Amino acid sequence: MLKKSFLIFTALLLLATPVYAATPTPESLELSVNLIWVMLGAFLVFFMHAGFAMVESGFTRSKNTLNILMKNFLTISVASILFFLVGYGIMFGSSAGSIIGSDGFLLSEISEIDFFVFQAMFVATCATIISGAVAERIKLGSYILIVAAMTTIIYPVVGHWVWQGDGWLTSLGFSDFAGSTVVHLTGAVGAFVVVLILGPRIGKYKGKKVNVIQGHNLPLGALGVFILWLGWFGFNGGSTLAADPSLVPYVIGTTLLSTSAALVSSSLYTKLRFKKVDASLSMNGVLGGLVGITAGAAEISLGGSIIVGLISGVVLVEGIRFLDTKLRIDDPVGAIAVHGICGIWGTLAIGLFSVNTGLFYGNGISQLGIQAIGVLAVVAWVAITAGGFTYVINKISQIRVSEEEEISGLDFAEHGSSAYNFKESLLEGTDNNSSSGLAERLNNNIPIGKTSNQSS
Amino acid sequence: MLKKSFLIFTALLLLATPVYAATPTPESLELSVNLIWVMLGAFLVFFMHAGFAMVESGFTRSKNTLNILMKNFLTISVASILFFLVGYGIMFGSSAGSIIGSDGFLLSEISEIDFFVFQAMFVATCATIISGAVAERIKLGSYILIVAAMTTIIYPVVGHWVWQGDGWLTSLGFSDFAGSTVVHLTGAVGAFVVVLILGPRIGKYKGKKVNVIQGHNLPLGALGVFILWLGWFGFNGGSTLAADPSLVPYVIGTTLLSTSAALVSSSLYTKLRFKKVDASLSMNGVLGGLVGITAGAAEISLGGSIIVGLISGVVLVEGIRFLDTKLRIDDPVGAIAVHGICGIWGTLAIGLFSVNTGLFYGNGISQLGIQAIGVLAVVAWVAITAGGFTYVINKISQIRVSEEEEISGLDFAEHGSSAYNFKESLLEGTDNNSSSGLAERLNNNIPIGKTSNQSS
Amino acid sequence: MLKKSFLIFTALLLLATPVYAATPTPESLELSVNLIWVMLGAFLVFFMHAGFAMVESGFTRSKNTLNILMKNFLTISVASILFFLVGYGIMFGSSAGSIIGSDGFLLSEISEIDFFVFQAMFVATCATIISGAVAERIKLGSYILIVAAMTTIIYPVVGHWVWQGDGWLTSLGFSDFAGSTVVHLTGAVGAFVVVLILGPRIGKYKGKKVNVIQGHNLPLGALGVFILWLGWFGFNGGSTLAADPSLVPYVIGTTLLSTSAALVSSSLYTKLRFKKVDASLSMNGVLGGLVGITAGAAEISLGGSIIVGLISGVVLVEGIRFLDTKLRIDDPVGAIAVHGICGIWGTLAIGLFSVNTGLFYGNGISQLGIQAIGVLAVVAWVAITAGGFTYVINKISQIRVSEEEEISGLDFAEHGSSAYNFKESLLEGTDNNSSSGLAERLNNNIPIGKTSNQSS
Repeated sequence: MLKKSFLIFTALLLLATPVYAATPTPESLELSVNLIWVMLGAFLVFFMHAGFAMVESGFTRSKNTLNILMKNFLTISVASILFFLVGYGIMFGSSAGSIIGSDGFLLSEISEIDFFVFQAMFVATCATIISGAVAERIKLGSYILIVAAMTTIIYPVVGHWVWQGDGWLTSLGFSDFAGSTVVHLTGAVGAFVVVLILGPRIGKYKGKKVNVIQGHNLPLGALGVFILWLGWFGFNGGSTLAADPSLVPYVIGTTLLSTSAALVSSSLYTKLRFKKVDASLSMNGVLGGLVGITAGAAEISLGGSIIVGLISGVVLVEGIRFLDTKLRIDDPVGAIAVHGICGIWGTLAIGLFSVNTGLFYGNGISQLGIQAIGVLAVVAWVAITAGGFTYVINKISQIRVSEEEEISGLDFAEHGSSAYNFKESLLEGTDNNSSSGLAERLNNNIPIGKTSNQSS
Repeated sequence: MLKKSFLIFTALLLLATPVYAATPTPESLELSVNLIWVMLGAFLVFFMHAGFAMVESGFTRSKNTLNILMKNFLTISVASILFFLVGYGIMFGSSAGSIIGSDGFLLSEISEIDFFVFQAMFVATCATIISGAVAERIKLGSYILIVAAMTTIIYPVVGHWVWQGDGWLTSLGFSDFAGSTVVHLTGAVGAFVVVLILGPRIGKYKGKKVNVIQGHNLPLGALGVFILWLGWFGFNGGSTLAADPSLVPYVIGTTLLSTSAALVSSSLYTKLRFKKVDASLSMNGVLGGLVGITAGAAEISLGGSIIVGLISGVVLVEGIRFLDTKLRIDDPVGAIAVHGICGIWGTLAIGLFSVNTGLFYGNGISQLGIQAIGVLAVVAWVAITAGGFTYVINKISQIRVSEEEEISGLDFAEHGSSAYNFKESLLEGTDNNSSSGLAERLNNNIPIGKTSNQSS
Repeated sequence: MLKKSFLIFTALLLLATPVYAATPTPESLELSVNLIWVMLGAFLVFFMHAGFAMVESGFTRSKNTLNILMKNFLTISVASILFFLVGYGIMFGSSAGSIIGSDGFLLSEISEIDFFVFQAMFVATCATIISGAVAERIKLGSYILIVAAMTTIIYPVVGHWVWQGDGWLTSLGFSDFAGSTVVHLTGAVGAFVVVLILGPRIGKYKGKKVNVIQGHNLPLGALGVFILWLGWFGFNGGSTLAADPSLVPYVIGTTLLSTSAALVSSSLYTKLRFKKVDASLSMNGVLGGLVGITAGAAEISLGGSIIVGLISGVVLVEGIRFLDTKLRIDDPVGAIAVHGICGIWGTLAIGLFSVNTGLFYGNGISQLGIQAIGVLAVVAWVAITAGGFTYVINKISQIRVSEEEEISGLDFAEHGSSAYNFKESLLEGTDNNSSSGLAERLNNNIPIGKTSNQSS
């Protein structure tokens, strides 16, 4: 889906400069119209990074908040630059053996820049999924190295397989409209293998007991969920790459209804199963519904999207429980279940609910099989590469902070400061300032550890 | 205004699929251009729900925050699904006696989906107005039932009268561009009658004394107000349903100036009346200015919009005071005054300031009379239906939580958890975790009430 | 850049009404397409004011939060109204001696309204830069007077010089695409001179010691930075004034890459220089990267934009340090360094990195000289006018709050309330309500100072 549109889009854009200078023509206007649509999509997906930052900081402890915020800022920044330098060519360059791109680095064509910007937001989305799962115990530098590996090679290769047009999964008939597999499953598998190497947070599992480590600011997390939902309209909607009136309304409609259904089912399901409507799980249900419809937003009916969403909400709740209590994978924000389990579900759902190829529309089981092959291939590729890479850098220099740093909090350990300072309003801002750390050292050359005491 | 544009819009969209596949033509491009504009509007109105969530949680107490957040998530979700299943047909289906729609359920035409999405955001806006007014003491389940009644029948019927084209209020000449009456007054009257049945929060009124129950996080509320203001550009601007250069700039200009004027007048008025610039009332003044210009954004002059806004700001302050101290209506966030009183003012303002039909432009008093009839009809319809429905469900099963639950907070009572957990950063996240409730029970099957203690 | 596009844009819009009613034509559609693009830009720049509000409140103390929020709401409101009444004509009216506009007040042409709205967001941006620098000690009324001076005269004159087309700086060849100088430097110089008159906050400088006054809520500040980054895509992107496929992708691409590079360099630089990645400085690095590319977004190459950004990040860190410790300018949020120093850097960078005129592209040093002249002229004009104005109003009535008010916090002093009330959730909301102030007085006529006690 993405591929053909992209080729047309690019071809048209090559004509842009000569056409635009003259009197407007239908051809020149079509370029402008599609430009606006893709840019709007890119802006919305960019804003998702604010959403991820709020979700991840809100659902974890306040002693690690600055660290999570910095990880999110660095993810979008490092991903954008590395995707410009390397990843874009690997993903969209001429195909070498249907496996990997081999040219188009550094964007020589202005006609590709808007497509690059839109795609850069996607690669950053994939990478930032990891930041939530590894929160509260990974070294900042190690995390950035993993982001670099994801954005230069691991994600672009998956993208090449599915979205470049000559990729082997596309040739096979694999369908993933906006990235349930390409973006979300890739990020989630990366998160899974890194967490395996990293281990759970101190205090999370004690003997048979599974402790809950409560998030510190759920309104911030809720805001993040709203922002992600908003941004996803650009994520799915913009993936049409054109303001096509026969496609866009459909994509937006399925995205809205699937997500709404997932919230209803996750909140209702927690009410039935645990006697109370669980807010955290329900909010993750929203995200599960979004991931679940991302692959099939353009080919599942409106009614089908409600069913996909209802299932996403329940799958999400049980997925989080399964990972946490059975596999004992400590994922502070539920990212692996949201993006991985619902990503698989969304990818497979095409094989069931696609109005073109789905089993339930009388098309047999072959599409479902192809979708499963795609899932398995991506899981294998990402697990091996991301796992191998993380294993190696962990051997060279441990990716996990020390126990002392973890207990004191990464905000203090990595940034010498704290995220909140509510007590200060009762005092004058003078000698007894707490926790400033760096800024104070910066001004007065006081050694680290002398003036800072954590206050949040 | 909405009606004729909508008919043209729909008619054009029916041609979409055949037209778009070919070479772009002015006709096909017009579809794409208007699609982008309506989608941008829909995204912005969707984001208003984040704004409502932040305003309502920020302006109430922290023990009820999760509950308010969940109500906002559920409102947009339930409203979208029910409007798809039922409400859209009631509102825009073929008219039965100019009173109610009778077909068009489940959206058989792809050409209507974008219009549906835009309208679904509006019905959810109407419903969510209630959530603020009933905050801190209504049962979640009861609230959802009321949302269901509003979004399937009560609001769609009002919408049919005014925006379907064959509705009786449209035929009468009633004018409400983007919904001061259709959306805001409808929601506010619903809120009013539910609050009458629900009663004030414990401790709000004691004998002659009117106590203030302070909001817990005004920066969050302020962010919500900014988001609402942003979203309103889509609410009013998108209601043109077309990127019409002779109309859109006008609508955006009046929206900006009215709102700016309302903030200036509400802050100045509180300064003059109470010696200090009251932040809460001024922020509500922003919302009052937005509601006030919503009906007339397309037909009041830029200068007129400033006057409408200045009056909105003062009307809002006195309206809140009147409802709170004279009528003793306990509306925690001022929603009834913002959406109801300013909604009436905005609707009537057309009769005064419309450049086409307004009294002050030499057009006599007839438009003002028609506007008043519309207001009265909507107040009567909503009061009777929403009031009757709420009365019945309250008889069947009380809509209000128990005194004990209200005092402990709805976050604990309904969700078994709390919104904030700032103390945790000082501890390890282990046995002494506070307030996790559900998640912990989920993992360890501990009965409710044993492990949770409220901490925020 | 802005000027020529604006003239074409306006000329075309004059045809809007007759054209649009008929069958769509390429000419009518071009109007609609550009309308959407400029409106999208305006909405995004509007949202930047939410970003400024969150940054400024998050990076200061909680006792001054309501005051900062109100300043941000009032800035956008007062600026919009005064720019409508006066400033727009001064900026874009027919030129009197290439110095100042002389007509076009009150927007008689509908065709200009969208351009007005877009520009009104810019003038408000310029003004709000001051609010951060003067936070925590200026009287609200004095601040509003300064905003009035900035938005009616001081900024519009600078804009006339550079963006009106007949202005003397444009004639000279000065280049400032989206306002590194026009908007950001103008605001920063205003902030600088006001701070000189206002003085530092109590406790900031004690003898040789430079104290750090810690912000109270950095997650809120981080959200603000994300919102500003998002909004800046509209700030720079919308400044094309047309959805031109040969220009817009370029502008968005350079904006993304410069900002990403600035975050990387500021975080890396703080790590190298101070041993820790400083979160506050890195977030300001984002803003520095945005300001740095604002002038040259349309004429610096993608690679060049990365270099401009890398330098912006380092310049920002050293700029903040220089102003704080050497000049002892107390700027609570770093606004003067972000908008002033990076504004100068961005303006000069055109002379180095412009692919059309830059020194590094073999074009000699003349453009760099012209850019320097522009910077000096704007610094002189703003310093004299804003400084003179502030000096005079300070003589008439001191612009600074009393020491007592500053220590108690401006929320209490100016608004009789507080921004947070977390303790309340443990109590019933009754007699023992803290800090409500105004609202309570409003209801019960209790004199100021009796019922309010600060609680945040």
